[in-house]
Amino acid sequence: LLTKEKNELLTQTDSGTPMGELFRRYWIPVLLSNELPAKDCPPVEVNVLGEELVAFRDSEGKVGLIDAYCPHRTAKLFWGRNEDCGLRCVYHGWKFDRNGNCLDMPSEPPESSFKEKVKITSYATQEMGGMIWAYMGPKEHVSELPKMEWMLVPDTHRYMMKFHIECNFMQSMEGDIDSSHSAFLHSNLKGQIESGGSKMFGREKLRQYSFKDMAPRFFVTDTDYGLLIGARRNAEEDTYYWRVTQWLMPTYSFIPKEPGDTYQCNMRIPIDNHSHWFFRIMWNPDRPLSKEELWDYENGGNIFPEVNPGTFHSKANKSNKYLIDRSLQKSLTFTGIKGIPIQDQACTESMGTIANRTKERLGTSDTAIIQARRRLITAALQLLEGHEPYSSYHGDSYFIRSTAVTLPRDIEVDKGAKELLRAHFNRNEARTNGE
Amino acid sequence: LLTKEKNELLTQTDSGTPMGELFRRYWIPVLLSNELPAKDCPPVEVNVLGEELVAFRDSEGKVGLIDAYCPHRTAKLFWGRNEDCGLRCVYHGWKFDRNGNCLDMPSEPPESSFKEKVKITSYATQEMGGMIWAYMGPKEHVSELPKMEWMLVPDTHRYMMKFHIECNFMQSMEGDIDSSHSAFLHSNLKGQIESGGSKMFGREKLRQYSFKDMAPRFFVTDTDYGLLIGARRNAEEDTYYWRVTQWLMPTYSFIPKEPGDTYQCNMRIPIDNHSHWFFRIMWNPDRPLSKEELWDYENGGNIFPEVNPGTFHSKANKSNKYLIDRSLQKSLTFTGIKGIPIQDQACTESMGTIANRTKERLGTSDTAIIQARRRLITAALQLLEGHEPYSSYHGDSYFIRSTAVTLPRDIEVDKGAKELLRAHFNRNEARTNGE
Amino acid sequence: LLTKEKNELLTQTDSGTPMGELFRRYWIPVLLSNELPAKDCPPVEVNVLGEELVAFRDSEGKVGLIDAYCPHRTAKLFWGRNEDCGLRCVYHGWKFDRNGNCLDMPSEPPESSFKEKVKITSYATQEMGGMIWAYMGPKEHVSELPKMEWMLVPDTHRYMMKFHIECNFMQSMEGDIDSSHSAFLHSNLKGQIESGGSKMFGREKLRQYSFKDMAPRFFVTDTDYGLLIGARRNAEEDTYYWRVTQWLMPTYSFIPKEPGDTYQCNMRIPIDNHSHWFFRIMWNPDRPLSKEELWDYENGGNIFPEVNPGTFHSKANKSNKYLIDRSLQKSLTFTGIKGIPIQDQACTESMGTIANRTKERLGTSDTAIIQARRRLITAALQLLEGHEPYSSYHGDSYFIRSTAVTLPRDIEVDKGAKELLRAHFNRNEARTNGE
Repeated sequence: LLTKEKNELLTQTDSGTPMGELFRRYWIPVLLSNELPAKDCPPVEVNVLGEELVAFRDSEGKVGLIDAYCPHRTAKLFWGRNEDCGLRCVYHGWKFDRNGNCLDMPSEPPESSFKEKVKITSYATQEMGGMIWAYMGPKEHVSELPKMEWMLVPDTHRYMMKFHIECNFMQSMEGDIDSSHSAFLHSNLKGQIESGGSKMFGREKLRQYSFKDMAPRFFVTDTDYGLLIGARRNAEEDTYYWRVTQWLMPTYSFIPKEPGDTYQCNMRIPIDNHSHWFFRIMWNPDRPLSKEELWDYENGGNIFPEVNPGTFHSKANKSNKYLIDRSLQKSLTFTGIKGIPIQDQACTESMGTIANRTKERLGTSDTAIIQARRRLITAALQLLEGHEPYSSYHGDSYFIRSTAVTLPRDIEVDKGAKELLRAHFNRNEARTNGE
Repeated sequence: LLTKEKNELLTQTDSGTPMGELFRRYWIPVLLSNELPAKDCPPVEVNVLGEELVAFRDSEGKVGLIDAYCPHRTAKLFWGRNEDCGLRCVYHGWKFDRNGNCLDMPSEPPESSFKEKVKITSYATQEMGGMIWAYMGPKEHVSELPKMEWMLVPDTHRYMMKFHIECNFMQSMEGDIDSSHSAFLHSNLKGQIESGGSKMFGREKLRQYSFKDMAPRFFVTDTDYGLLIGARRNAEEDTYYWRVTQWLMPTYSFIPKEPGDTYQCNMRIPIDNHSHWFFRIMWNPDRPLSKEELWDYENGGNIFPEVNPGTFHSKANKSNKYLIDRSLQKSLTFTGIKGIPIQDQACTESMGTIANRTKERLGTSDTAIIQARRRLITAALQLLEGHEPYSSYHGDSYFIRSTAVTLPRDIEVDKGAKELLRAHFNRNEARTNGE
Repeated sequence: LLTKEKNELLTQTDSGTPMGELFRRYWIPVLLSNELPAKDCPPVEVNVLGEELVAFRDSEGKVGLIDAYCPHRTAKLFWGRNEDCGLRCVYHGWKFDRNGNCLDMPSEPPESSFKEKVKITSYATQEMGGMIWAYMGPKEHVSELPKMEWMLVPDTHRYMMKFHIECNFMQSMEGDIDSSHSAFLHSNLKGQIESGGSKMFGREKLRQYSFKDMAPRFFVTDTDYGLLIGARRNAEEDTYYWRVTQWLMPTYSFIPKEPGDTYQCNMRIPIDNHSHWFFRIMWNPDRPLSKEELWDYENGGNIFPEVNPGTFHSKANKSNKYLIDRSLQKSLTFTGIKGIPIQDQACTESMGTIANRTKERLGTSDTAIIQARRRLITAALQLLEGHEPYSSYHGDSYFIRSTAVTLPRDIEVDKGAKELLRAHFNRNEARTNGE
């Protein structure tokens, strides 16, 4: 339960808002690298944090991210020609490089110095881990890329995709760190997670604990990077089954996975206050992804939804009621909606584009959600007072993993699972292995 | 002509508005019974009087009508499973019965008493006459179902359907009690009502009076249930032709029919201030509806419009200009639009979603409309001062009929047509006749 | 660069705004004559300057332009029957003539005088040059039709069409008087205007000057009718190449053409503040348009875009990104968008429905744009103070032409091209020639 004011503070990320300024202290992903597949390829519109931008890969292969509108007469640079290290507006031929400098202004007399006076907003970009990242904050505060394990592994070890979601980032992210909903939203009527991916989801024996004990106790610990979220369930008489979610500032999460599993990262990047991009990354630090895994990601609809061709919009969506099958809901699965991401999307989009948190009734299962809200709001308010967020300047703190593990009852999870909660991928080792 | 303030008072029915509170004193239809065809069938979204609700038929066959949003984290209960006398949210499994009690909260520890503290908004429902009715007002003021004749006759004597109309309820209802428009909007160029249903509309001889005397005089009488509206036309030298419309608070009307005809009731139920459900009921107190009548209702488009399959939206609608045929308008009918309900819809939706009554110029033919507005506004303002509406507590007063009849010029209509204006259906008699 | 206030002043044309009142001093085109092809044909909805109207051609062939809504109960007169010198509302049969008088009110008693009291808003219309023109200002200030040459030539010498554009009129009109954008937006990578119409665009030799000298110097002269805009480019050592655009108050322009060419007029008529009608007229004062020209206008997409059948909406539009072909943009043309009008539309619509002129950076190439804004704003403010615009009362001042011509460097364009800048069409002469 939040006041109206707190709910706005939490969900509004336009430039100048407290949360918007906090987000602008982090490097955030704005595109998949393959959306700009080659030097001088067509530009791509980028809407992020309420700002309208356009991205282009210049003749040197570097990515420019600049204002969507030509400063001359405000035509969109999206129509522009990407040529010779700059994007040229088709209206009058003004040309800008990736740093926002005006390189050419052919409509003005050769002797004019107007060109030197005109600059366009540009943001710094980096490419890492198959994504294009941007820093949209003040130049004197440039921060560090988060060093997440999936950003370091070879391409063969990783799969990712993005999806357009029609609601505020926050309510979807709350679902990512909410371990208790899986036993309902994603389950079938026999008490199993309903996904083609039982192999991927780890050993059945352990998974059953989620259904034996549906009300896990939550232990949430503040960390440098965000929150370590332990959901504890009774396992055998002397053991607990722990599912540990990692939440990483400002909008990332690692879903609990057992050692050896293929890991999963979710990222929620605001387009504006009423929609966001959902990036989902699967990675295995130890081996290339298998053919079966890749087939499932691209065709199964279990982990990644099917999209309308040429778009990042899922086929099952609000306008078709997520293709809910009420007879399936009666006979087999809890929702009658197919695929884990679409089940999540149906729930979170149904809250409206900004959930009304003044009406909610939170329980003990919402402990992590409460903490993540508090953490974000606190960091945003502290930034207003001049305190920079620690995590944005300490990318190394993101070198972690989630886990799911059974431990003796008398051992605390952060101690008992210490090694499992650290990332271990060693780029040099991987190379030695011939990758 | 109304002031802007009066127009708002008349048309706004959200919770807390004067008219909204008046509507909440009445039992109003929210669904056709067959929209919830079986115990534990899928839930249905219900938007009414500006409120978002969800309806479900539970394991006992009773209908629950509760808040659309789960109180936990505000996911929509529409996705829910309807199971074992309650609707269970698919997100975390919270389950609510038809009275809004939380029956199960599996995400909380078994020892938690949180479940007892959480209630959800619920409204009382009843089923009668093929419809599900709701009472959405304060519990200490629960009123009575209106006792309309069509609610009592056997299913074989009755046909009904509902349609989504893209404007405020009031301007459509004004058309229902406006006897003077038929001779134009619904007529052909030969001076006849243009509908397949000349048989249904009664004897031609009498109908012709409508075209001989196009400016009827209106006699409107206040009654317990609403208004008795007599439209008087000159018939023969010593007779008048009377068409009597009944208007029943808050939004119902009986269209003039001659004795022996199949009767018609229109109901206008606000979805929100900019759209409403139009329920239309045909009934014959004396006999089952004929095959010809049923065929016409389902296929003819004369009395009930054709809808897009699986919806309550008419095929001819604003987006396709109601399929107006200008050559038909030139040669045969007054509008070139096919079917009485679509002719009405084209006119009333064209006024905008809320008609601008500050600009209208009313004449003597609008006497009934003026009186109905006055009656509704007065009742709403009186309720504000603590005076409960009489009709909502006296369902028996709705046991009436409309009529169309020729009377000697020296007899007043309410006296001359007294028996014709009372409903006569006797359930016991009907049963005796083997129905 | 304009302040927010000036930008609003410039772009808002609803009734009561300063610019709206200025526009209401001019006769403006509201329909193509062939949209009302015959006496008593179906009425047509007309939205112009933010007003909702309906037009009909009555039994005498005269055009009525009246309020869209029947004053009785505010149903739309668009559904009406056009019969016997008036438009009859289908709801209750009220009938209005082209002057807004109520001719018939059959729903009222014959003795009623209500009919005489009811009038409907009507605007004066004239037909000339294939168009229906309206005067929407105060009756005591009725002005003159502009006497543009294309309005006088025989139908065989003229072709015209209109298109729906999804932005404010002003930003499109600014493109019409912006001679410097052609060398980019409308060109190919070989330095040529890319259009099937090289013949229509005049001699190649001269055209090349546009590409040799891409930063023309602008000379803008105030005239009775608007602005004479000379764009001067270096030609040979002792000559300049002049392209002269005529801008005519309030929203018309003649594109530079060489003597003997087929001329072009653009007109931008506000529908509301966020969209406008674009009328484009081609005419040749000396001869009928050729088969090749007409084929190109109707099929080529170079000068007139292809439209969706039965509409005035272009096939290539915002929703399909104007069918941009990025490989064509790479290899052949500057934009990859086909057809000059669609190239313009893509640019101007991309500015948003009202361009944000507080952010623009204008250069010397924008001289004419700056002057046209100043002229409109000044005239609007002067009208507020009671000074009527000169041009609206002096239609003869519109009898002009644009030109493109090479002149010795020491001769001023308005002197050197004096005869070329006057219209010469002589109706009597043409008649003598058998037309």
